[in-house]
Amino acid sequence: MSSSSAQPLAITLGDPHGIGPEILLRAYAESAVPDAAVVFGDLTVIEACRRHLGLAVPVRVVQRAEDATPGSLCVMDAALMREADIAPGQLSATAGAAAYAYVAEAARAALRHEVAAVVTLPINKEAIQLTHPGFSGHTELLGELCGAPDVTILLASGKLIVSHVSTHVSLSQAIARVKRERVLRIIELTHAAVSRLRAAPRLAVAGLNPHASENGLFGIEEELEIRPAVLDAQARGIPVDGPFAPDTLFYLAVREQQYNAIVCMYHDQGHIPLKLLDFDGGVNITLGLPILRTSVDHGTAFNIAWQGKARIHSFLEALRYARELRGVPLTA
Amino acid sequence: MSSSSAQPLAITLGDPHGIGPEILLRAYAESAVPDAAVVFGDLTVIEACRRHLGLAVPVRVVQRAEDATPGSLCVMDAALMREADIAPGQLSATAGAAAYAYVAEAARAALRHEVAAVVTLPINKEAIQLTHPGFSGHTELLGELCGAPDVTILLASGKLIVSHVSTHVSLSQAIARVKRERVLRIIELTHAAVSRLRAAPRLAVAGLNPHASENGLFGIEEELEIRPAVLDAQARGIPVDGPFAPDTLFYLAVREQQYNAIVCMYHDQGHIPLKLLDFDGGVNITLGLPILRTSVDHGTAFNIAWQGKARIHSFLEALRYARELRGVPLTA
Repeated sequence: MSSSSAQPLAITLGDPHGIGPEILLRAYAESAVPDAAVVFGDLTVIEACRRHLGLAVPVRVVQRAEDATPGSLCVMDAALMREADIAPGQLSATAGAAAYAYVAEAARAALRHEVAAVVTLPINKEAIQLTHPGFSGHTELLGELCGAPDVTILLASGKLIVSHVSTHVSLSQAIARVKRERVLRIIELTHAAVSRLRAAPRLAVAGLNPHASENGLFGIEEELEIRPAVLDAQARGIPVDGPFAPDTLFYLAVREQQYNAIVCMYHDQGHIPLKLLDFDGGVNITLGLPILRTSVDHGTAFNIAWQGKARIHSFLEALRYARELRGVPLTA
Repeated sequence: MSSSSAQPLAITLGDPHGIGPEILLRAYAESAVPDAAVVFGDLTVIEACRRHLGLAVPVRVVQRAEDATPGSLCVMDAALMREADIAPGQLSATAGAAAYAYVAEAARAALRHEVAAVVTLPINKEAIQLTHPGFSGHTELLGELCGAPDVTILLASGKLIVSHVSTHVSLSQAIARVKRERVLRIIELTHAAVSRLRAAPRLAVAGLNPHASENGLFGIEEELEIRPAVLDAQARGIPVDGPFAPDTLFYLAVREQQYNAIVCMYHDQGHIPLKLLDFDGGVNITLGLPILRTSVDHGTAFNIAWQGKARIHSFLEALRYARELRGVPLTA
């Protein structure tokens, strides 16, 4: 096996009925995919979408990832969707199951070192749940497939990087997960990732409660769990400060440029400011996997699927991060 | 008693050791206070700060609010701070107790209809807690002083208005307060306020959980409490939608201008995006009081106090809102 830098990228097509297929095709039509890449998806879907949008993109079926070459859209055909199954914008068990299979196959190829990274287009949770009840997201699925229990979401934009102590759980469960060991682990994962993404990592940790609890007045997690984790991380040589009042920290990081990455205590604490800052260009990178995975930071947008309206910037950024981090799993 | 439009505004000086005194003096020095206003504070502090910064501001002591006139800085002298007590940037029980007293006196004057509104400069919670243990904030104190149990914080900037189902409580307690009746009450209060602040109120309600729980997958509050409250409000004729996924809602409201106000489920859900959008110009307006109160949206900033560095924009905006809403308590 040659080094990972020689491997192609894997791209998963996402839900066939969402905006994934058109984003993929338009990126190729605009010659915006310089990489050798193999698409895990259905040829039927890609061809139908290509014809529907009238795009001139050379599509080629490959049997092995290593056969992928730059320039043409190379598909590892899953052959799960028939022409008659295709209904853009519709929630469908068949489409959901296909999207799930693309991710599983791509992850296995990455674990076998046949691809250098997995770049995912959006799946639809509800569609997948029709055949996989309890499915909660790409990140969690990849954690399971790779046997990695401590995975989390890092969102990167030019303006800010955020990571999260918990992802797709209720806010009540998220609070219960704010534990010293977990916070420390996420600080370490974030530091390892930011060290590869920025010249000088400067990490800050957000508090959980309003004003970071004002010395215990509005909660105990800052003193019992978060501050000890920050001290643990500092003792390990990681440049990190906190916990800080969440409502001023994002301003300090972005406007005053005091920090380039923030470790957040729950999903929306990081997602709200990041999406407000950079709705179209954010990239989702999974931390804690033995493989490298980047993703668009948006959903399937069924309401505009296959209409040629979807913005492709987040996908191009996900490809760019995969290219730059090529073959480097983001574990600490 | 003449109508409230004839009454002066009340301004509270805030913690004498914070940036309140210099913001007040600089606003007057720049002739940016066109209103007749009475300052509830200490003459000693105002004069010391004025001399320290070398500002030419006419200061006049008044005995009654109605004696205030535009042009000079009219002080209702609390006479609580001696020259020797003044120590800018220092946490002090004396200064905290004085700041508390200014607010209490101004609120009483407003309840007696002697002033049209109360505009507050920042207090320091820790300083006040030295003499008033358990003190949790301006908003809660004003609720107590006015006998109003259902108060909350609305933050207004030119770009967005947010209100909150809970304010200064732990995130765990905030979750417990997401109840149908309370959410409905905050929607009503927000609607009443936004109707006075914007030509056409378009309200959205944020979910509590990531992705607004994705149909119950990550939490139950959306279906059990929030959606019923939204339906109740709609049945009462209020133009409101939701609950929406929090991480995309702020983008929809601000970038796509689909909504001009968002009812948030907890303090940081609204404070993080609002402060990121408008750190210096945000105004804090208390909803649910029988009096009108607006405030700067920042703290005492002890680290730069009395140095002439503090930005005055938020104070000028708080004055502007008080002027525009003059004498109109924001209750539903």
